[in-house]
Amino acid sequence: MEFTEKKCRAIYERERTNIEKKLKSLLINKNPKSLYNPCSYILESKGKRLRAFLVLLSAKAVGARYSSVYNASLAVEILHNFTLVHDDIMDNANLRRGLPTVHIKYDLSTAILSGDNLIAIAYQNLLKDTKEKHKDVLSIFTQGIIEVCEGQSLDKEFETKSKVTIEEYLQMISKKTAALAEVCCSIGAILGGGSKTEISLLKNYGKNLGIAFQLQDDLLDVFGDEKEFGKIVGGDLREGKKTYLFLKALELSNGKDRAMLNSVIKNNGVKKSEVASYKKLYEKLKVIEITAEQVEIYTKKALNSAAKIKDEEAKALLIWLANSLTKRNK
Amino acid sequence: MEFTEKKCRAIYERERTNIEKKLKSLLINKNPKSLYNPCSYILESKGKRLRAFLVLLSAKAVGARYSSVYNASLAVEILHNFTLVHDDIMDNANLRRGLPTVHIKYDLSTAILSGDNLIAIAYQNLLKDTKEKHKDVLSIFTQGIIEVCEGQSLDKEFETKSKVTIEEYLQMISKKTAALAEVCCSIGAILGGGSKTEISLLKNYGKNLGIAFQLQDDLLDVFGDEKEFGKIVGGDLREGKKTYLFLKALELSNGKDRAMLNSVIKNNGVKKSEVASYKKLYEKLKVIEITAEQVEIYTKKALNSAAKIKDEEAKALLIWLANSLTKRNK
Repeated sequence: MEFTEKKCRAIYERERTNIEKKLKSLLINKNPKSLYNPCSYILESKGKRLRAFLVLLSAKAVGARYSSVYNASLAVEILHNFTLVHDDIMDNANLRRGLPTVHIKYDLSTAILSGDNLIAIAYQNLLKDTKEKHKDVLSIFTQGIIEVCEGQSLDKEFETKSKVTIEEYLQMISKKTAALAEVCCSIGAILGGGSKTEISLLKNYGKNLGIAFQLQDDLLDVFGDEKEFGKIVGGDLREGKKTYLFLKALELSNGKDRAMLNSVIKNNGVKKSEVASYKKLYEKLKVIEITAEQVEIYTKKALNSAAKIKDEEAKALLIWLANSLTKRNK
Repeated sequence: MEFTEKKCRAIYERERTNIEKKLKSLLINKNPKSLYNPCSYILESKGKRLRAFLVLLSAKAVGARYSSVYNASLAVEILHNFTLVHDDIMDNANLRRGLPTVHIKYDLSTAILSGDNLIAIAYQNLLKDTKEKHKDVLSIFTQGIIEVCEGQSLDKEFETKSKVTIEEYLQMISKKTAALAEVCCSIGAILGGGSKTEISLLKNYGKNLGIAFQLQDDLLDVFGDEKEFGKIVGGDLREGKKTYLFLKALELSNGKDRAMLNSVIKNNGVKKSEVASYKKLYEKLKVIEITAEQVEIYTKKALNSAAKIKDEEAKALLIWLANSLTKRNK
């Protein structure tokens, strides 16, 4: 069978639908509703389910069936959704995937508590797919949560820190975003019974894909289509977030341009009307091309790992996934 | 050796000191400080370390050494501290163990994030003491977190619900408080290699002790010594919390008394100056004696389980612990 782009997309959509269904039925009949309604609300707000898909692909890549790691794939997706709920509180975000965030739709306490509960539900699902010999899967998953918390903490630190280096930024996104993608691939490969080499390959794939994904996210914040992206374009600039683009622009600028960028830090963001002028500055400083180049570099690293996978279907899908994420506009 | 009250207290203090030391050294040299300082802050604010002690005693009760479950005992203590950090946000509490709560000392985001991180650190420590055959320990621990979240959710629901039955209240505290005590005893007994009967005995001990503890806590809120208790006396009344005392008083009252109690619900609490008159009403309706009697009933159930434990030291300590908690004034 040839794995055309169309075929790859069809498999992804099929598995995404599977995941959606499983997430939808997961918390039915659970009480109290004051806890489980908000949990279901976030879990059912359609996402890309990329992390779940990474678990499935990594298991397939080492010769296992998708169905052998469905619960683990739910676990990472649930864990990801926990981070969304709590991050949205910390980031004062009102919208997520085009819908009101949990603390807006419900309230702060509900959002905190449902996030907490989702962590435990994630473990509960992971435990369903882990046999006695899989203690390392639980350790990796746990370490993943710690990395995500550390990454989010660094991200918050950077908000008030006047000087952040590109290196520090990359360390932050490695923890905040890439760590979980790495976890997905690792646990999929381990649960699927992969060899040390296979696990290591997939781990690298996940890590590099995660970094490429986050850098692309930074790009999309400035250049994405508001409707497609589901978030407010220029949001990072308006909040004064020190993204890769911003830090690179700062590094490459001087004189008036630099002063203009420094004023973002000083004022903790810019007005909506100012976003366009910063876009222009980014264009002038070529930080778009530079960031896009970085996205390509990390994507290539991921592709190199994927190329060594034996299973034809998983290989094709891992390659297709990395390529489509780089070219995505949402 | 005879296990006098003095001897029991000495063992408890020795182990409490051990736990304190281990908690203190746990997060040294961890970065980022913006995440780990608040985590250390809550872990090092001296507590009774009862949950950790329950794990140790339950392992000892089935013939294991305290030292074989130190990591697991840290895990439950860390988990308990996570619930404190997040509950304090939800309850708008400014003080905890006489110190500013995490969201007051730091900020909301920091409190949310350090709580999240503590959950993962709890698992990390638990995993150190769990061997391959101990998958059920992880399931029980995970289920414990879910129960705690459900209990907290019910507690928040009750705040705005006009009618709460005593039965619903007991279900709530079974989840919010007793479930974790039960988890402590179960995992201590399992990790210690206990038989099914032993595990079940200790599980019952933990559950009943937990309920007795919470009812005693409700009593102390009204009748405790402010300095000793470390919280504001009458706080539950002032916040309009539907405690066992309050619900019992409502059940037993009529006429003016009932109207006075209903006004607490209507006004979401009482003024500081009104607390004394409610204390008097509680005395008149004998809800103090009734609650104290319930504390005794649940304590007795715990004592009955403890009496069947073979290990003399653990038995003496479990009995001593249950008795001292009933008589505590803080």
